Amino acid sequence: MMHVMDDTIPLPTGFGCHVASIGVKDDTDDFVVIATADPHPASGVFTMSRFAGPSVTISREHLSDRRARGIVIVSKNANVANGPAGLDDANELLTIVADRLGCEPTDLLVASTGVIGRRYPMDRIRAGAAATPTAPGGTDAGAAARGIMTTDTVPKVAARTIGDGPARVVGIAKGVGMIEPDMATMIAVVTTDAEIDADMLDATFRRVVDRTFNCVSVDSDTSTSDTAVVLTSAAAGPVDIAEFEVALEAVCLELTKLIASDGEGAETLIEVRVTGARDAAQAKRVAKAIVNSPLVKTAVHGADPNWGRVAMAIGKCSDDTDIDQDRVSIAFGDTEIYPTRVDDAELERLSTYMRGDEVVISADLGIADGAATVWGCDLTDGYIRINADYTT
Amino acid sequence: MMHVMDDTIPLPTGFGCHVASIGVKDDTDDFVVIATADPHPASGVFTMSRFAGPSVTISREHLSDRRARGIVIVSKNANVANGPAGLDDANELLTIVADRLGCEPTDLLVASTGVIGRRYPMDRIRAGAAATPTAPGGTDAGAAARGIMTTDTVPKVAARTIGDGPARVVGIAKGVGMIEPDMATMIAVVTTDAEIDADMLDATFRRVVDRTFNCVSVDSDTSTSDTAVVLTSAAAGPVDIAEFEVALEAVCLELTKLIASDGEGAETLIEVRVTGARDAAQAKRVAKAIVNSPLVKTAVHGADPNWGRVAMAIGKCSDDTDIDQDRVSIAFGDTEIYPTRVDDAELERLSTYMRGDEVVISADLGIADGAATVWGCDLTDGYIRINADYTT
Repeated sequence: MMHVMDDTIPLPTGFGCHVASIGVKDDTDDFVVIATADPHPASGVFTMSRFAGPSVTISREHLSDRRARGIVIVSKNANVANGPAGLDDANELLTIVADRLGCEPTDLLVASTGVIGRRYPMDRIRAGAAATPTAPGGTDAGAAARGIMTTDTVPKVAARTIGDGPARVVGIAKGVGMIEPDMATMIAVVTTDAEIDADMLDATFRRVVDRTFNCVSVDSDTSTSDTAVVLTSAAAGPVDIAEFEVALEAVCLELTKLIASDGEGAETLIEVRVTGARDAAQAKRVAKAIVNSPLVKTAVHGADPNWGRVAMAIGKCSDDTDIDQDRVSIAFGDTEIYPTRVDDAELERLSTYMRGDEVVISADLGIADGAATVWGCDLTDGYIRINADYTT
Repeated sequence: MMHVMDDTIPLPTGFGCHVASIGVKDDTDDFVVIATADPHPASGVFTMSRFAGPSVTISREHLSDRRARGIVIVSKNANVANGPAGLDDANELLTIVADRLGCEPTDLLVASTGVIGRRYPMDRIRAGAAATPTAPGGTDAGAAARGIMTTDTVPKVAARTIGDGPARVVGIAKGVGMIEPDMATMIAVVTTDAEIDADMLDATFRRVVDRTFNCVSVDSDTSTSDTAVVLTSAAAGPVDIAEFEVALEAVCLELTKLIASDGEGAETLIEVRVTGARDAAQAKRVAKAIVNSPLVKTAVHGADPNWGRVAMAIGKCSDDTDIDQDRVSIAFGDTEIYPTRVDDAELERLSTYMRGDEVVISADLGIADGAATVWGCDLTDGYIRINADYTT
């Protein structure tokens, strides 16, 4: 299992983490600090939600100089929709941690996920923040990943070496529901010891996020806390930027698939590939319509090769008047099922294929060469149970 | 129960119906013809789907003169995505029925709903169409409503008298899933014996549909067959157009709520009222975001007054940059729950309220006076079961 291996993945050189249980909601780990000894280039992308919380607004502001020393992550409470008090709570949290690390609050980022509309338990937050080591010495990325979980069932960690090394990219992420990123997924923190110019880092990260985190959707709901940041320590020195982007994308893509396959109640990872579109934007729009369709998601859950629902989802993109049903083709796995029709034996084979852990649905629009791939998951009774029973 | 009463609702004067089981899929009624003796003003609105079937394209074409004699409705098979053959099948069906009624095929409309991508069983369609009475004498709107059901659990009929009468408006509808109308809901046929000018009828019907059928969403999926038509017989003579619009809207609204409350697996009707928006369009956009949110739908199913999910759904409308979370207010029933907070006792009372058959969620954006109301339903295990097990 992935999460067993994860335990053995160390953070890049120059990073230390502090993982603790401070009792935000229960006795599981819920407080994580990942930091370097000095400020280094950093970048972040955040939710576009009109109900974005102070964690997002503060981190966006603190990244205006494109440098940071670290990030503080609180799980089990999103600190969203708490008004000015919530903003004060977040700033007080950063002030305490910054004092422990010997830096300015503006050198730190903050992320928080969990229930909306409930204030931090500030007594426990103050005590927990004050217990932050002056020089966090943890190196276990898996422990940090576990510390930011809410309803996640597995910690999400991915790592790659840049070129021949020694520089590495290590990312952790959390998020299983309320996921249709406008700018980033729930919470993803990517760290690297590569030495990279701030502008180059920012441009590269935004390109990669658009091809990875922005292509995952569990339930079409957009989080108020979506945050994806990349932090650097420069400890491993300069790297080839192209090799860095390859490693960064590999890490973000692996985290993206981990998020999709761990979607609330998910039993099957759905990969939707749209080709032949007018452009990449249209391909992504159509792919999202397919991967978000409750009828497509339930068909996958039922192992039913119901291509009619895929056609319906494509048809939903009614503003795309250049989509012509007579030029569209649809495939499950490697088998075209529209307009080509298959016999019952093949349908039975496809049904068996759809009982697997990963189902690939492909659609070609026959317009031009725009393409996009997105990831999601099936819709199951588990999703209903988790979200109908989740208590505010 | 509504559907018991429905059995007693007669069609307006001048309309006759024929309801039969011709074995499209099973032995339930699946073939309905509703017609008048001569062509009269008619109007229709249809799906915007790029995978619209021949029933939609033919009916749209036959309404170009804004007149019709009747409509043929086939259920259990949508006749969608069948290429030129599907178009030929639909035209042959209308030709046979028109021959029986002694009119031109262009005087008739056709609607079809059911599985996508499977051709009509033409042997049975030909035999069934040929058995259409030359003058359909049925008057039971409830029987017609039952004849167009697919996975509907109750027939959907509504009737009103125009002003003091004698003219009436009687409507039937079907549709429980794949419902997020772009132009109309699954299938709705509204009949009236009022004598109304064709242009006036068309303008009035489009206004009413925009406030009713276009405000219902069960699962955000858009049908390839959505059709809503209004037919007149003029048998009851002229009416006051304002009184006609009142009766027409009442009928369409009742059918809209019947559709929402009979959504696949639905246990609770959700009414979302958005006020204080920049304009009606923004209000409708935000209301749809709320009523379509899987997390809001599951919260209602779980009787959880989780206003944070409503805030999240409002926040999803990220293009509406004039939405300011500090000016938004949210209420369940008559109780404001954001920004005003309620105690645990009130939360418990709200949870009890949410166990009812109908839950009203209100949001005021505090921008201007734009308002809109939409209807949907909760998301339950039943929806998963129905759609994961529905066989292509």
